[in-house]
Amino acid sequence: MAKEAEKQEKKVTFSVSKENNFSNWYSEIIEKAEIADIRYNVKGFVVIRPWGAMLIEKMYEFYEKELKKTGHLPCFFPTVIPEENFKKEAGHVKGFTPQVFWLENIGENEGRLALRPTSETAFYQLYHLWIRGLSDLPLKLYQRASVFRLETKATRPLIRAREFLWIEAHDAFSSRKEAESQVQEDISTTEKVMHQIFGVPFLPMKRPEWDKFPGAEYTIGSDIIMPDGKIIQQPSTHLLGQNFSKAFDITFQDETGKKQYVWQTCYGPAISRILASVIATHGDDSGLVLPFAISPIQVIIVPIFNDKNKEKVESEAKKIEKELKEKGISVKIDLADKRPGDKFFFWEMKGVPLRIELGEKEIDAKEATLFLRDKKEKIKLKNKDIASEIIKQGEELDKRLKSKADKLFESSIESCKTKQEVVKALENKKIARISFCSSEKDGEACAGFIEKELQARVMGTRHDKKEKPEGKCIICGKKANEVIYVGKSY
Amino acid sequence: MAKEAEKQEKKVTFSVSKENNFSNWYSEIIEKAEIADIRYNVKGFVVIRPWGAMLIEKMYEFYEKELKKTGHLPCFFPTVIPEENFKKEAGHVKGFTPQVFWLENIGENEGRLALRPTSETAFYQLYHLWIRGLSDLPLKLYQRASVFRLETKATRPLIRAREFLWIEAHDAFSSRKEAESQVQEDISTTEKVMHQIFGVPFLPMKRPEWDKFPGAEYTIGSDIIMPDGKIIQQPSTHLLGQNFSKAFDITFQDETGKKQYVWQTCYGPAISRILASVIATHGDDSGLVLPFAISPIQVIIVPIFNDKNKEKVESEAKKIEKELKEKGISVKIDLADKRPGDKFFFWEMKGVPLRIELGEKEIDAKEATLFLRDKKEKIKLKNKDIASEIIKQGEELDKRLKSKADKLFESSIESCKTKQEVVKALENKKIARISFCSSEKDGEACAGFIEKELQARVMGTRHDKKEKPEGKCIICGKKANEVIYVGKSY
Repeated sequence: MAKEAEKQEKKVTFSVSKENNFSNWYSEIIEKAEIADIRYNVKGFVVIRPWGAMLIEKMYEFYEKELKKTGHLPCFFPTVIPEENFKKEAGHVKGFTPQVFWLENIGENEGRLALRPTSETAFYQLYHLWIRGLSDLPLKLYQRASVFRLETKATRPLIRAREFLWIEAHDAFSSRKEAESQVQEDISTTEKVMHQIFGVPFLPMKRPEWDKFPGAEYTIGSDIIMPDGKIIQQPSTHLLGQNFSKAFDITFQDETGKKQYVWQTCYGPAISRILASVIATHGDDSGLVLPFAISPIQVIIVPIFNDKNKEKVESEAKKIEKELKEKGISVKIDLADKRPGDKFFFWEMKGVPLRIELGEKEIDAKEATLFLRDKKEKIKLKNKDIASEIIKQGEELDKRLKSKADKLFESSIESCKTKQEVVKALENKKIARISFCSSEKDGEACAGFIEKELQARVMGTRHDKKEKPEGKCIICGKKANEVIYVGKSY
Repeated sequence: MAKEAEKQEKKVTFSVSKENNFSNWYSEIIEKAEIADIRYNVKGFVVIRPWGAMLIEKMYEFYEKELKKTGHLPCFFPTVIPEENFKKEAGHVKGFTPQVFWLENIGENEGRLALRPTSETAFYQLYHLWIRGLSDLPLKLYQRASVFRLETKATRPLIRAREFLWIEAHDAFSSRKEAESQVQEDISTTEKVMHQIFGVPFLPMKRPEWDKFPGAEYTIGSDIIMPDGKIIQQPSTHLLGQNFSKAFDITFQDETGKKQYVWQTCYGPAISRILASVIATHGDDSGLVLPFAISPIQVIIVPIFNDKNKEKVESEAKKIEKELKEKGISVKIDLADKRPGDKFFFWEMKGVPLRIELGEKEIDAKEATLFLRDKKEKIKLKNKDIASEIIKQGEELDKRLKSKADKLFESSIESCKTKQEVVKALENKKIARISFCSSEKDGEACAGFIEKELQARVMGTRHDKKEKPEGKCIICGKKANEVIYVGKSY
């Protein structure tokens, strides 16, 4: 009977399945796993609830650790940026102005004050003052902050919001070569953190000329595909070249005493949006499935007892908890006054990767049952050296998540030879790989066609490998110079 | 000769001494230790540089750890708050409106959007939705965020700014009693973190009626004294009672099924301002003196070598570095191409608590020289188990910092029996302790006199002990009901 009730409860977890209706599934999981609350009374601004906030903290930790390892230091810049700063770089002001929230004038400044949509024009004002000679270079700083963009399209929690949490790194070098290696380092940071640790695969795409970061020489975006076939841009890195250093007069004296402009890059992982990808990539119809590396609780222990053996079971649970804690594992015993089935249900929704079920029988046999959230399988654990076993199982679970995501990702790319094939690929929730005239200015018309007629977006060309086009641009029929990728976006 | 040059360089560290001109010393140390840069082009907004940012990160870490230990969970609320939310609690809107930065209307909302000066009216909007029954209580959430206040008085970096970094904790309970214990817990958090770890002593003061947090029943501020005798308010905790729960309709069903309003508290440690106190309390005329617990670099190793023994010395330095790192100590070897004296000078300015000086002689004697930043003394360290010795020395240094600060703090309070004595005490950079008529509404006139005639502020009554007044209010001559403290403020 209890079992039956439990089953029924499970059935109503989601009103739709992830496969059939990703969009609704996503909205529901954000609410039901208590990641965010969309009922805040300002459009496009959501509240991140504790489970989401703890995940974001862990994700920040991994990102900041990697940035520090590659020689970056933290700093905090003001949230407000004067309008005059924006105006210094022509491309930048044009690209960002429509997206800016402005403060009401308080009668002190001449121009208006913006809420930062990104902080190039705040940082570089100071880089102008800080950089004098070669000994000040490279300068590699980052900040953890929230940024604000006046999105006019429909907003979606964590995916497209008017305020989101991110990291922005701003680096300055004495040569173009160093700046170009920084772009590579940024992509490798995305690979190490987002792909290797969070299990989210991506394509490093060089954006076409018309879609690069305002003020950049070029932009490498990291595109990930969502289960509904839509792509979202994750960390992007930009070679700013000397565009901003000329605008902000950021110079150094070289070995010969000559004044030179610095070479710059910037990199922006949007942590809250990466969380959206983690949720979308790994989640299933029972709820979140979190990588062991970033789950706020890595192991949940559910003691199963009756009045007679309660003390014995709880004391053994506490022993295991202590052992795991000593090894740095984040563990919790669920002692709530609920049926075990309800607890299972609750922690599966929360995505906790490993669950230890512990009853008297198991204690007597010196073992425990381990439930693997991703496979929904139970295995037996020997109590001897349980901590090492848990760490091993956690690592294996993360490998499985990544490999499953990788496989799906690889199968999501389809080479297409005609417009009709592109339409079909997009309908089948895939990314279309096509021969294309050009990602320079003269390809913009074809991109416009793709946007208007196919409701899709040119992602760009592969940055991680040179690809040779076959024949003609499948849009305009002119000579194809590149292979580009096309996907739907939000 | 080199020694002479070093000495001369040291002399020009500050153009003034901390004792003679704290205000200028403070401005200089902020710049010279590269804590913050005040040259950002918006009034009241400063840039926190890496050394300051790393300190702030460490301080956040200790605070958040303590908050989590006491059952708080993190969350992230939007930076913007609709005007209508402010208007819900009458005292709150009155108290905060003059300090609010507003966004230009984007034509979507009816009212304006504020940049949060504090987030009661953002959080409690959602608490209304989240709290239903006893099982939802207590609700204890905090966020790490920056807040914005349109200060009209002169701003000072980290002390009074228009944007500052803080933590705000918002707690809701089913009874007044629990809420009152939370106020005690908050004060104990301030004690554990700011006093015990950061070494900054404070007085927990119950604010007079006219100076409490807008919307609170009462406020306990933590006042610390700066070397120039001025007081600044550090973490304050507020018993909100049911003022906000009634305004925001935050209710739960009690055991009998009856609807009850929750009891609330909030607590706000301003991390960037606490950093100001750490700098001011411990710094000296050679620069910062940082507690071992929070210094971004805890141990700096300065190898002293010539061309012949360079390799030997560096290799031993690396061995020590490795040993210390393994014990979780933050350590760095200074391999810059500078004279040892310049390195000493640099790291003293940065406040690194322990410096290991390592030359060939020391290596041969299996020892190292340890410089203690606070005492400016050198001691010999045996290389055997150097990590444990360093940890011990670090802990002792922190104890010395705290005890020195405590002594100075205790001697800064002077009991005064006349207005003239108060004037003299304030002139001598002290806090005056006086018999006073009342900290209820009818004492406000006397407080006004103190503000106008003595340019000082009534801090309130001691929260940590009951004090009995003697005789009459030294301001108005009426019956004294309380002992209050009076200090200068910025």
